[in-house]
Amino acid sequence: MRAVDVIVRKRDRHALSADEIRFFIDGVTSGSIPDYQASALLMATLLCGMNAQETAALTDAMVRSGTRVDLSALAGPKVDKHSTGGVGDKTSLIVAPLAAACGVLVPMMSGRGLGHTGGTLDKLEAIPGFRVHLSLDEMKAALAEAGCAMIGQTDRIAPADRTLYALRDVTGTVESVPLITASIMSKKIAEGLDALVLDVKAGRGAFMKDEANARRLAESLVAVGRASGVRTEALITAMDAPLGRAVGNALEVSEALDVLAGGGPADLIDLSVALAGRMLTLGGVAADRAAAEARVREAIGSGAGLDRFRRIIGQQGGDPRVVDDRRRLPAAPRHDVLRAPRSGYVAALDAELIGRASAVLGAGRERVEDPVDPAVGIRVLAPRGVPVSAGDGVLELHYRETSRLDAARPLAARAIDLADAPPTATPLILGALA
Amino acid sequence: MRAVDVIVRKRDRHALSADEIRFFIDGVTSGSIPDYQASALLMATLLCGMNAQETAALTDAMVRSGTRVDLSALAGPKVDKHSTGGVGDKTSLIVAPLAAACGVLVPMMSGRGLGHTGGTLDKLEAIPGFRVHLSLDEMKAALAEAGCAMIGQTDRIAPADRTLYALRDVTGTVESVPLITASIMSKKIAEGLDALVLDVKAGRGAFMKDEANARRLAESLVAVGRASGVRTEALITAMDAPLGRAVGNALEVSEALDVLAGGGPADLIDLSVALAGRMLTLGGVAADRAAAEARVREAIGSGAGLDRFRRIIGQQGGDPRVVDDRRRLPAAPRHDVLRAPRSGYVAALDAELIGRASAVLGAGRERVEDPVDPAVGIRVLAPRGVPVSAGDGVLELHYRETSRLDAARPLAARAIDLADAPPTATPLILGALA
Repeated sequence: MRAVDVIVRKRDRHALSADEIRFFIDGVTSGSIPDYQASALLMATLLCGMNAQETAALTDAMVRSGTRVDLSALAGPKVDKHSTGGVGDKTSLIVAPLAAACGVLVPMMSGRGLGHTGGTLDKLEAIPGFRVHLSLDEMKAALAEAGCAMIGQTDRIAPADRTLYALRDVTGTVESVPLITASIMSKKIAEGLDALVLDVKAGRGAFMKDEANARRLAESLVAVGRASGVRTEALITAMDAPLGRAVGNALEVSEALDVLAGGGPADLIDLSVALAGRMLTLGGVAADRAAAEARVREAIGSGAGLDRFRRIIGQQGGDPRVVDDRRRLPAAPRHDVLRAPRSGYVAALDAELIGRASAVLGAGRERVEDPVDPAVGIRVLAPRGVPVSAGDGVLELHYRETSRLDAARPLAARAIDLADAPPTATPLILGALA
Repeated sequence: MRAVDVIVRKRDRHALSADEIRFFIDGVTSGSIPDYQASALLMATLLCGMNAQETAALTDAMVRSGTRVDLSALAGPKVDKHSTGGVGDKTSLIVAPLAAACGVLVPMMSGRGLGHTGGTLDKLEAIPGFRVHLSLDEMKAALAEAGCAMIGQTDRIAPADRTLYALRDVTGTVESVPLITASIMSKKIAEGLDALVLDVKAGRGAFMKDEANARRLAESLVAVGRASGVRTEALITAMDAPLGRAVGNALEVSEALDVLAGGGPADLIDLSVALAGRMLTLGGVAADRAAAEARVREAIGSGAGLDRFRRIIGQQGGDPRVVDDRRRLPAAPRHDVLRAPRSGYVAALDAELIGRASAVLGAGRERVEDPVDPAVGIRVLAPRGVPVSAGDGVLELHYRETSRLDAARPLAARAIDLADAPPTATPLILGALA
């Protein structure tokens, strides 16, 4: 088999065989197929598509490029939650301890923030001492001890995805449903899960700007998960405005703790309960969705989730005292408030612009290798729908360097849309694939 | 400007600006844009297309990646002929001396054979001593002395094309009208021509399998030539069967000499006269096509073309005695004749299969760096349309190694199609863009 012939077949809109896909991914992994052939196939795939069989074969080949973790020695259902990326989305920090407190094992492998979207690893590292780089053995020990491990990808998980993702990023081949599916699902399947709950975001702060594309991606992800023997469900959720009121790493940890402690904003509570509830039903520890959500709310009310988060933090080398003493989290030295220039209603808070402003403050990164500042970020003082008077605070920018504040302010200001009439209420959960 | 943004714009089917195209080609030439980004843009271009402006800008950027030869010091019109590649196409060896004999300067830069198609450089090198690698100064001297120089590309002509062509060959991005156009025309425009006659082949032995696609390519080539100030015309000609009766380097030189000496097969004579005639009209040395073709036929009849070829060979270090003594050309030690298995008419001789069989015998190459054997090849004993009896010879294979003969024979046998009725006559020249 020759790589160029596989490229030509995809270019000519044929479906590739599982053998052809395996040959290509093996070649990418071993280095026998050079980057320039890989990028040509990626572009041909983006433009000509892949059917469900091809996408499943691609995912499988990428799983087989590395280790598939074997968690069978641990008793109990292994269930993870994955989001396609948003702004202010700290649900992982909430649902992982809640699901673990309810009897599900949560082997959660997450990524870092890039561009305007945040990443769970960056948020966890805002907790002093928290180690996200565990070995697979340490991960198994953490699962046995705390029922949950929240870690970064190891080099042994889907190495082909690392190579291909780096190429996609610089060759304009990111925005492809089959390629996104294989990238996400190869890593999740390699984790050794029994079940997976996906949160596919749609809206201006999301990768998929409209609901129809988000639904297509969700369908593809769910189909591949199920084809690989992982019970998979997906929620499609709105990401036009930030989720909750906090954007930025330590600020988001603090808000996650609010929810686990029984407080926090309603949108974040509702989504967390919905996601954790599905983790319970898919994990088989609750009979139906109503029972599952009741158990999750009970774990919040009883403090079991907060207690579990304390154990997880301690298990991974972090300072568990942050749970009860927020002053132990990093805090930015200065605040600046963006105020409503006139009276009206907050009609929209553009999640992408707020995410970009937060990244400019130092909470995010443009390149994978950039460091982030755990303390800085943005708090939403007046969320979508509330009435404001001229001079009322809408966004609070937590910053360290004045030059970064100066660069972030115009982005944040553009994110605020005021109107004379209150906006129509829109649902947070747009749909589900179950 | 970032390369990835240019790729994304093409991927999203936007027309690229001349600045974007120039930025990309400059980056490919300097090496600042890596191969994997170039191949992604090539695939996006193949699948999303380019309009006439983009194709002209791409060609121009590729011309500017190297030297544009200045032939203004030489008096007289500079006219070249270029074919998109066929089997048995030795017209360059005929039209160059004929046009030069009629007062046109012919600065002809050609390529080598690849796959099933032959190349003019390989044919010329079948003449003992013939040097195709002249410097630009030697080329000018040859033009001044013999009115013609038949050489290979120098490194200074369109270096971006060399890089891109090597990539296209291994990334499935050869078959794109804008990319083919820019590749061909950048090299031709850089030659410093006043005018160019194109022979765009259509059929099973050609790159373009059908006439409609050949016409689209011809239109694109002619448009770009004219946009660059080169008077350009194109013939669209049939390439279902080999042109003439000889395939293989020395065999084709010999057949070209036949035509220059007033003999040779009718199809080869007719096409050569048509092409050379257009070189004369475009060069302004003949008033109209009828007058031009009459002058070309006169140059054959008078021996002026043959005499001119003698001078060209001598000027480039070759042995001019081959013109009068064919035994000085390399000859294969052994022949093998493929015979008609039954009586009938030769309905088709598949040019691609005969080209591949000839390459297998050693006359062609699979990779650019492979050597060729000048002596081997195939002679057509019974061309399309003639009646044969069982046992009559159809193809004569000139070979050196028995193992190669054994591999070539089945290909050659498959090329022969016999039928009970004579095939309908089809024209050689399918159309013209003038």
